Amino acid sequence: MIKIVAKNFIKEDKMDEFIALAKNLVEETNKNDEGCLKYELFQDMNNPNVYTIIEEWENGEFLQKHIASKHFKEIILQIDPCCEKPGEMNIYKKVE
Amino acid sequence: MIKIVAKNFIKEDKMDEFIALAKNLVEETNKNDEGCLKYELFQDMNNPNVYTIIEEWENGEFLQKHIASKHFKEIILQIDPCCEKPGEMNIYKKVE
Repeated sequence: MIKIVAKNFIKEDKMDEFIALAKNLVEETNKNDEGCLKYELFQDMNNPNVYTIIEEWENGEFLQKHIASKHFKEIILQIDPCCEKPGEMNIYKKVE
Repeated sequence: MIKIVAKNFIKEDKMDEFIALAKNLVEETNKNDEGCLKYELFQDMNNPNVYTIIEEWENGEFLQKHIASKHFKEIILQIDPCCEKPGEMNIYKKVE
């Protein structure tokens, strides 16, 4: 299992637009993408313009397929202008 | 439910020491701390000195109790000298 923490920094005047797009991405991914164990959207309680998607995938191959999917590429293109700076993504493995 | 992402930057020569301490913290927290839904240790696959604890708590009160607990305070004191710089912590609520 791999875990993704994908942090986005959203412009003040683009929050509603971003939330609608991100919810759509969560829905499409959960519905369509094989190997997706979890895909959830969170808002930072101290920095309300920080929105983070926390994901679990069976393995890296399924993650790559997700990133190559039509819905991901289309929605990410629309999310991009909502961001005030580039996001941060960490890919993690669990320490047992 | 609240979600915590707590990122730690560990010195090269302190990795083993940190892992032992963090595993102990994970174990003590899962065993003792009320309201803890999940408390897991991850390693960044691209930056192996980045270790992140991803947590789920029923609410902020249980998180505060955890932070005030004897095991948390004792272990954090020992983890501190393993870190090359201050960690980062985000507290998130889920966007439904």
